[in-house]
Amino acid sequence: MLIVGEKLNSSIKRVAEAIEARDAATIQDLARRQVEAGADYLDVNAAARVAEELDDLTWLIETVRAVTDAPLCVDSPNPKALERGLELAKGSGRPMVNSITGEPERLHGVLPLVAEYRCPVVALTSDETGIPSTVEDRLRIARKIMAEADRYGVPHEDIYFDPLVLPLSTDVRNAAIFMEALAAIKAEFPGVKTISGLSNVSYGLPKRKLVNRAFLLMSLHAGMDAAIMDPLDMDLMALLRAGELVLGQDEYCMRYLKAYRAGLLGA
Amino acid sequence: MLIVGEKLNSSIKRVAEAIEARDAATIQDLARRQVEAGADYLDVNAAARVAEELDDLTWLIETVRAVTDAPLCVDSPNPKALERGLELAKGSGRPMVNSITGEPERLHGVLPLVAEYRCPVVALTSDETGIPSTVEDRLRIARKIMAEADRYGVPHEDIYFDPLVLPLSTDVRNAAIFMEALAAIKAEFPGVKTISGLSNVSYGLPKRKLVNRAFLLMSLHAGMDAAIMDPLDMDLMALLRAGELVLGQDEYCMRYLKAYRAGLLGA
Repeated sequence: MLIVGEKLNSSIKRVAEAIEARDAATIQDLARRQVEAGADYLDVNAAARVAEELDDLTWLIETVRAVTDAPLCVDSPNPKALERGLELAKGSGRPMVNSITGEPERLHGVLPLVAEYRCPVVALTSDETGIPSTVEDRLRIARKIMAEADRYGVPHEDIYFDPLVLPLSTDVRNAAIFMEALAAIKAEFPGVKTISGLSNVSYGLPKRKLVNRAFLLMSLHAGMDAAIMDPLDMDLMALLRAGELVLGQDEYCMRYLKAYRAGLLGA
Repeated sequence: MLIVGEKLNSSIKRVAEAIEARDAATIQDLARRQVEAGADYLDVNAAARVAEELDDLTWLIETVRAVTDAPLCVDSPNPKALERGLELAKGSGRPMVNSITGEPERLHGVLPLVAEYRCPVVALTSDETGIPSTVEDRLRIARKIMAEADRYGVPHEDIYFDPLVLPLSTDVRNAAIFMEALAAIKAEFPGVKTISGLSNVSYGLPKRKLVNRAFLLMSLHAGMDAAIMDPLDMDLMALLRAGELVLGQDEYCMRYLKAYRAGLLGA
């Protein structure tokens, strides 16, 4: 599974403060530790201060780039910020764009960038009416996004659909609906990939990490290709490595045994 | 998921010693704690001393019965021991029989008991040639068992097939083969149930509990109905409760919240 490290996000108070204070040490420490822990991509989001987003994102990416070459996942609802991020993120493997939705301004504002930079893109199955509650409505938005992506010539394997899991606390079938939508999207568009964050599912429940872990393992089993998650959560990462092994995705158990020898599977 | 507590098994040295020494306190403590932790059934196995099995099993069941009414899963390769166990286990909900295989002497020695006592039975997809390596060969044995079960009039919903997972350390696809076999059996015989132990899968690997946990969650997602497992492993049980929630099997999150309030989801 592809791991997108979620820690460099200005929706996290400590990160927002570090960005505002231009505290490079805090940012660089989070960047380095996520890469060491196994992140394949580092999400970078500086959208908290809307008026300063371009400056904040520029500083954030340059600060991260000073300590690691890891590919970045440039995260903003604003096409202008995504464009700036892609310019700066270049040169370290293909950056990822996070995200597009079914909303016309995000489709037509961002897909030309995705085509120009030939980079993978996270596509949320929501639109101007919000997040649909049914599998069929998520699939309808996915179809609309695919039609536009085809028009811009984006290869299917570069599209990471996020079927957007809603909290179990509002409807206990929400994770099951997410996994059904994930399977339906992969069945209809065999080349595309799928991705999700882990924390929405457990909103409003106690012991959220338990629920996030169970959701990650079951989504992995349902065919999810990538997760936006906290690679510094060692228990979560250890369980993920075990899950990849159980799925048969870890030839000769090599990655699992390597993680064990590196002390990454816990005491 | 139906939980069969695995601790009262004479293949565990401490339990074998307690049975031999007629140490009721040790046995009763394990019985009580497993029920309190959420076991739906208690497996009882006294097969370690073959020559004494009938006496040992009689003592074991009577000792357990003195402290709990929980249904028992009578566990032996020996039809005579199973018969004795079923006689003694009666009166506390239907006992379960563990197990039959595709071997003729076990089919014809045990299925009449299953029919007479109208009790659920664990059916292993192995035969006189051992555990098959392929999905197709497991399915072939399941068909043979189903034909005999039908002849004896055993209802399909009382049959718990165990497709017998082999260790990942010998072939990393073994858990995937198990889950494929599980799905194939349920597809061909829609009424039947499925079950597995959790520890074979991790044989020969470090940090086995991690692998067992990932295997449990993924098997639950694959449709497994029951597990023979250690209900005293609190981390495992907490993750299982979270997994049932993610699957949408826990209406209004009631069981999860109840486990939380009882302190069963960890500190």
